[in-house]
Parts: sequence; C-alpha cells; structure tokens
Amino acid sequence: MKVYNDCIPCFARQGAEAALAYAPDDSLLQQEVMRTVLRIAAEADYQKSPPEIAVEYFRAIIKLTGEADPYAEAKRASNEAVMKLLPQLRKEVAESDRPLETAVRMAIAGNIIDFGTPHGQKDNGLLDVIEHAVQSDMCLDAFAVFERRIEDAGLILYLGDNCGEAVLDRLLIEQLPAEKVVYVVRGKPILNDITPVEVPQVGIDQICRVVDNGHDAPGVVIGECSTEFRELFDGADMIISKGQGNFETLQDCGREIFFLMKVKCDVVAEETGLPLGSIFFQHSEACG
Amino acid sequence: MKVYNDCIPCFARQGAEAALAYAPDDSLLQQEVMRTVLRIAAEADYQKSPPEIAVEYFRAIIKLTGEADPYAEAKRASNEAVMKLLPQLRKEVAESDRPLETAVRMAIAGNIIDFGTPHGQKDNGLLDVIEHAVQSDMCLDAFAVFERRIEDAGLILYLGDNCGEAVLDRLLIEQLPAEKVVYVVRGKPILNDITPVEVPQVGIDQICRVVDNGHDAPGVVIGECSTEFRELFDGADMIISKGQGNFETLQDCGREIFFLMKVKCDVVAEETGLPLGSIFFQHSEACG
Repeated sequence: MKVYNDCIPCFARQGAEAALAYAPDDSLLQQEVMRTVLRIAAEADYQKSPPEIAVEYFRAIIKLTGEADPYAEAKRASNEAVMKLLPQLRKEVAESDRPLETAVRMAIAGNIIDFGTPHGQKDNGLLDVIEHAVQSDMCLDAFAVFERRIEDAGLILYLGDNCGEAVLDRLLIEQLPAEKVVYVVRGKPILNDITPVEVPQVGIDQICRVVDNGHDAPGVVIGECSTEFRELFDGADMIISKGQGNFETLQDCGREIFFLMKVKCDVVAEETGLPLGSIFFQHSEACG
Repeated sequence: MKVYNDCIPCFARQGAEAALAYAPDDSLLQQEVMRTVLRIAAEADYQKSPPEIAVEYFRAIIKLTGEADPYAEAKRASNEAVMKLLPQLRKEVAESDRPLETAVRMAIAGNIIDFGTPHGQKDNGLLDVIEHAVQSDMCLDAFAVFERRIEDAGLILYLGDNCGEAVLDRLLIEQLPAEKVVYVVRGKPILNDITPVEVPQVGIDQICRVVDNGHDAPGVVIGECSTEFRELFDGADMIISKGQGNFETLQDCGREIFFLMKVKCDVVAEETGLPLGSIFFQHSEACG
C-alpha cells in the first residue's frame, strides 16, 4: 500500500509522539526530533508504503537521540499484563464451539495493542476488546480455506506484530500444528513491535520455532529482510500476517496471505472498505 | 506566544487541510502542498508565534497553487448564515439585564467559527454555542475595567478575526460608542479570516470605521503591519482582540489588551490554564 495523502500529517503526529518517547526530558532535542521527521516526511517517496517511510525517520531519531528502545519497559509490561490473562482466555478457547475461530478472533483483538496508530491503545480494557471481538461480525468467507491450508501446510509462517498482542498470537499458535509454525519477529526495536528480546517474555519459543526478519521496519519490507527470512517467506505453504504494518507492506506482494488485524486508522479503513475498529480477516489470494 | 512542541504536528495537519482546499482536484499538487508545509515547518524558527510560521507556509501554498482565496465562498456563506441570526440575537441583547456583557459573550461565542484550529467548527449549531456562551461561567474580574475603558477611550481598536464571527463583532460594536471604534481586518485572504472584501457582507463599515492591517498572518504580527495600522495600534486608548491567532501574536506585546476568544486547541488551553472550549475574557495589563 502506498502512502495516502492522509498519511502525511500522521507522520508528523508520530514524530511528535516519538519526540516525547525518545527524548522525554529534553525539549530542544524533542524539537530536533520533530524537525528531522518533518524533513524526512517532506522528501519521502510517497510510492513507498508508510512503514518504509517510518523506518527512515525512526532510524534518524535513534541516531539523533542515542536511544535505541524507549518502549522496552512498556513492551515488557504489556506482555506481562496479557500473560496474566492467558489461562482464562485459553480456557475460553478450549470451551468454545469453534476453538480455532475463537483463537483467531482473540489474536485479531490483540492487535489493538499498538503504539504507532492514532486509534491503537495500550492494553487498558483489553479483556473488553477481546470479548467484543469474539462476539463481533467478521467476514469468515475465507475461513474454510484457512482451515484447509493449515491442514495441508508443511510450513506455516506467522508474521508477528506487537508485544502484548504476541501473547494472543501464542494462543492461536496453540490451536495450530505448532511444530509446523515459524513465528517471525522484527530484527530490531521499533515502537512496541516484538523483537527477539521479548520472545521469552511470552514463551512462544517454547512452542514453535522463532526467527527475526533481520529488519527494523514496523512492517515487512521483504527486499530488506534477511536471506533466512526471505527463504522462509518464499518456501512457506501458508502465511499468517498480523497487523496494519504488515498489511501495508505485504498487501501487494503477490503471495497468498491471511491478513489478521484491527482496522486502526482512516486510511486503512478506506483501503479495506471497513469501518475504523473493525476486525479484519482477509485471504489475499496469490496473484501475478 | 512561541511555538509549543505540540504545535508542530498541527502545522502538518493544517497543511493537509490546506492541500485539500487549495488543490481540491489534483492529488499530486496536494502532495506538493504538504511537502512544502513540512519543509517550512521543519526549518521554522520556533521562537516565533504559530501564526508567524503559518503565514510562511500559506504564502508558499498560494504561490504553488495559484489559488489566492479558496475560502471565499465559505466566508460569504458563513457571514450570510450569521447575518440571518442577527435580528434575533440583537433582540436578546436588548432584552438582557446586562446588554454589554451579553454582547461580549456572543462575540466570544462567534469565535468558534474557525477553519484553522482542530476544534474550531463551521457554523453548524452556532445558536447552541451562543446560548451556551451566554449561560457559561466566565471570569469577569476585568469587566469593570472593560466598561471604564470604553467610557474613557477616545479610540477603541477592535481587532477582528473570522468571517461569520464578524457579525457578532458587529453586535458588540453596536453596544459600544461605535463612533470611537476602528474595526481591523486582515490585509489579505488567510483561512476564513475577514478581509476588506467581506466587510460589506456584514455591514460593519456602516457603523464604524474599518481598516485592514496590511498583513496576511492569521494573527497580528505588528512589525509586519502597515504604518496606518501601527499608528492606530500605538495611539489607541483601548484594544479589543478577538480569537486565538491574535492572542498568540499579541500576548507578549506589552500593551494593555482585552482578549476575547474561545480556547480551541490544547496548546492555548495550557497557555491560558483553561479547558478546551472555554470562553476567555482576559485583561492583559500593559507591562514593560
């Protein structure tokens, strides 16, 4: 997905939030962070996807402030908070009439935990969000294909997104043949996205193989990822992708992908044709 | 008032809105408008007031798009809509126990009509806003001084702000010794601010002298204004200033000014210590 015009002021909003996060005690450095983001957003290639532009300014912010991961503690706390809910949610899945569908809904609900979008939120009220997602209308046209692919696949690539949310990814992976799953995290810290550091906090490495994609975009910019990741991506029989950033970067990649996410900004609402806040389960068929 | 860090993403938001207004049918030109605003906002002097920076990018937008006044029709419609309310509001003022105070409250309420701020609005629901302002709590500590200054003044300078709102300025001027009032408008089109073109639409020129300040900022940047205006400003016995833009540019000018406005953004809420949406009547004493 290329940049919509509405994404452009959103870069500045993200820059202002980053300024506070990366330079919390230095108002002048905050201004420099914002100037840097505005400069990069002004000159960016708007044919790229928003996460490809975001990675440019986040790298510049890290260089400018010397702060690599201001969200480390928030990520840990978010994982811890959702881990506390895991037993209760696991029971709900087990007792459900359709455990796989319930786990999918919960995994999508978890995508609300997002520090990068205007309508994302921290994990307050997460249980409400999850219960709402479990009850919500959701287009399940592709669900039969989803189940069939799981059955047939030799390798299932599961592209993770945020911390906190990752606990609910674990819950869904528990409903899959986990031995066939490779869970993918970001190569370096970016916003509250999960990286190798946070994997043990949610224990996904205890139930399936985990790799990082070797890159630091809040999405999956295939051409920039590690060879290992690209080989997995090309060779996977099934790809499950979590979150808007992955959707924005992979939507047009030509691969069959199951996109699971909450619609968290007006631009993606327009792109998907769904209202803000919708839970989104889409089977993007292979093309090209 | 200098730029707060929170103003910076707001420049980008205003740029995005300007892109739609100044280049409604040309998506690529819209992008150029936004790039231009981002570049100017990135390099701006944050010791200046926000309207001083805004005027830089609005001039660049006008040059880029060749469109001088995209709000001309909206301004006319706004004036017309509020003119229809004038007889009814005039009657309410006349029948009020405290006509001057009621007219002040209505003039402040009119300041909600603003295309430049995130929490401004077009003139929908204006009657409700006015009635609310007439009933609202408002700090009137300075009201006795305000009345005394009106009585004593030889020259009252009334600094206007937006179209639509100007009709309610007229209502207030009708409660003043109008022969002593000079009403000041912007020198050139900027957002929905009133300029000489719109003055006849509200008939202020029929009740008092009107001048333009010779400048195109959405505020009053004294040093950039015409000699005529500066002489009036220096010689006035009393200054009434409407709206946030005038407040942001004149707050620290050292003159005694009565500021009348609605608090329409978080930054001005912080600066004034009042909640968003408050009606603000402040006597800024001469200093320096």
